[in-house]
Amino acid sequence: MGELRQNIITREWVIISPERGKRPHEFALTTERALVPEWAEKCPFCPGNESMTSPEVLRVPDGNSWKVRVVPNKFPAVKPNGEPLKKMLGIRRSMTAFGYHEVVIEHPAHNKVPSDYTVDEWVSILKVYRERYAAIRLDKRIEAIVIFQNHGEAAGTSVRHPHSQIVAAPIVPAQVRGRLETATRYHDENSECIFCRSMIEEQQEGTRVILDSPCFLTFIPYAALSPFHTWVFPKRHESSFENITDEEIADLGTHLRSYMLKLKAGLNDPAYNFTIRSIPTHEPSNEYHHWYLTIVPRVNVTAGFELGSGMFINTTLPEESAAFLRNVEV
Amino acid sequence: MGELRQNIITREWVIISPERGKRPHEFALTTERALVPEWAEKCPFCPGNESMTSPEVLRVPDGNSWKVRVVPNKFPAVKPNGEPLKKMLGIRRSMTAFGYHEVVIEHPAHNKVPSDYTVDEWVSILKVYRERYAAIRLDKRIEAIVIFQNHGEAAGTSVRHPHSQIVAAPIVPAQVRGRLETATRYHDENSECIFCRSMIEEQQEGTRVILDSPCFLTFIPYAALSPFHTWVFPKRHESSFENITDEEIADLGTHLRSYMLKLKAGLNDPAYNFTIRSIPTHEPSNEYHHWYLTIVPRVNVTAGFELGSGMFINTTLPEESAAFLRNVEV
Repeated sequence: MGELRQNIITREWVIISPERGKRPHEFALTTERALVPEWAEKCPFCPGNESMTSPEVLRVPDGNSWKVRVVPNKFPAVKPNGEPLKKMLGIRRSMTAFGYHEVVIEHPAHNKVPSDYTVDEWVSILKVYRERYAAIRLDKRIEAIVIFQNHGEAAGTSVRHPHSQIVAAPIVPAQVRGRLETATRYHDENSECIFCRSMIEEQQEGTRVILDSPCFLTFIPYAALSPFHTWVFPKRHESSFENITDEEIADLGTHLRSYMLKLKAGLNDPAYNFTIRSIPTHEPSNEYHHWYLTIVPRVNVTAGFELGSGMFINTTLPEESAAFLRNVEV
Repeated sequence: MGELRQNIITREWVIISPERGKRPHEFALTTERALVPEWAEKCPFCPGNESMTSPEVLRVPDGNSWKVRVVPNKFPAVKPNGEPLKKMLGIRRSMTAFGYHEVVIEHPAHNKVPSDYTVDEWVSILKVYRERYAAIRLDKRIEAIVIFQNHGEAAGTSVRHPHSQIVAAPIVPAQVRGRLETATRYHDENSECIFCRSMIEEQQEGTRVILDSPCFLTFIPYAALSPFHTWVFPKRHESSFENITDEEIADLGTHLRSYMLKLKAGLNDPAYNFTIRSIPTHEPSNEYHHWYLTIVPRVNVTAGFELGSGMFINTTLPEESAAFLRNVEV
C-alpha cells in the first residue's frame, strides 16, 4: 500500500503508488545507443564549423581548439535587444521577449553524452555556467536565469551534439515566486532554512541518499514527483548559484560524474532534464533561499496530466529508487 | 519576434517563441494508426470479460450489454478503506493513501478512439462523470476529485481500450490551492470572476476561439503553455463540475465531438491529456471559482524542463494554433 507524501519545500502532495509500478531496474531503456560519428560535417557545434553559429560569447580554449563554447541561440526564445516593456490590456498581460538565450556547447566531440564526461570536463562546464550567470546578472532588466540541459529526444532535445542552454528572462516564474514565499514563511516561523533542514533530515535518515560528499548531497526527495526525480543540494547555505566556489565546483563535478555513470549502468542512459534553480537575480542572498540542482530522468510519461491537474502520481517508492541508484557500482 | 505572456488565471509567464517552432500543421503525426481489433480476448475492458475487472460501481445499460461501465482500478493509486491519517515527522509529511481510483470504460468497442465518439456517446460519458463525482463527494474525507483521460501512449496510457480515470484524494494539490487564492484575490479586487472576465475578453477578441456555442467556449488561452493547450469554459458561472446541467452536457458533447474531429483531421489524432478541473470538494460553490476542462495535445516534448524550472516556452503563436483548429472543416 502506498501513501500520500507532501514535499515541504514545494508544498506539493504526491500519491506514492508503488504497487502499480515497476521495480527500479525495469525502467532501464532496452534500446541500443545509435552509432553516432565523432564529427559531423553539417553540425554547427562541431569544431571547424564555428562560423555556422552566432558569434561566440565565451570559449574555454584547448590549444588551437576549445573545450567548451558559449554562443547565442540561433533561434532564440528571447533576445537582448530592446527594453522589457509590460503591456496590460484586460486579460492580456504581455512583455517584449527581452532576455538572453545562449547555448553552451559542452564538448567538441559530436558523439559524447554526459555520462562520458570526466570530472574535469564537468568542472569546465560548471565554471562556464558560473561565468555566464555572473555576466548576465549584471543586466538589471533580467530577473531570472535558468540553466538547463535536456539530454535525449525524450527530454525534448533535437540537436545531438552535447549542449545545454541558458535562458534569462525579465520576469520571475509564478512557481518560483510561490516557493520563495514558502521558504520565507518557514524561516519566519522556524529561524532556519527549509532546504538546510531537509538536508539534515535526509542525511540522518539516509534511505533516499544517493551520494554524500563534503560539499553536496544528492538524493531522491521524500515526495519525489517521478521515479528518479533527483535533487542535488549544496551543503553550504547559499542562495545564488553564482557564488559557488571552485572547491564546490570540483566536488559537484564528482557528483555529476558518478550520478551519470549510475544512470548509464543502471538505466542504460535515459533521457533527462537537468536544471539549476537559483534565486531570482533581484533578490539578495539571504538566509531562507538555497540554490540547488534538479535532475529528472524521463523514464515514464506523466507530466501532461500533472501539469493539467496539479495532482502527481509516482509509481515507485523513493527509498527503493534511491537504494537502486546508490548501489549501482561505477 | 515573440513575446512574454502572463496567464492571469494561473499567474504563469510563458515565453511565446514562434520563430523557433513549426507551423501548426507541421505538428501532425505522420504515423499510421495501428490496426486494432474491435474485441480483444485478454482485454478486461471488453464485453464478455466483465469478470476480469473489480466489481462494477456503475453501468449505463444497452440491452443486455452496456455503453459505459465504471470499475475500481485494479492497481489503485489510492484505496477507500481505512482513514486518511496525517503523520508529520520532520520533513516527512505523509498520509495513508486513502481515496478513490476508478476507471471509466468509455465504450464497449476495443478499437474506438475519442475522435470516433458520437455526441450521444460523449453525453453518456459526461453523465457518468457527473454521477460518480456526486457520489464520491458524499465521502467527507475526500477533498479533491480529478477526472482525466489520457489518450495515446505519448500521454501516458498503457491500456488500449478507451477509458478515463477518476482519482479522489483527501488533500488539495498545492497548485489548485494557489489558483484558488489568485481567483479569490481577483474577485476581492474586481468584484467579478476572473474566469468569466477572461471568457468575455476571449470572445470579444475572437482570435484564440476554436468553438463557441450557447453554453461553452473552447479556446487556446492567451498564454498557452504548449502549442495546442486548450481550455473549455462553461459560460454559466459555476464552481463545481457536479452542477453541470443536462443542457450543458449536451452542448459540451458537441464541443468534444467537434474538437476531437478537428484534432483528428488537422493533427492526425495526437495523444492528449484531458482533465476536468473542479473546485475542492470542501469549498462551497462561490462567485470566484469556475470549473473548466483542459485538453493538452502531446505534440511536443517539454514538460520535464518546465516542471523542473517553473519556466515555460511555447514555440507557437496561440492565435495561429487556434486559427488552424478553428478552420479545420469537420
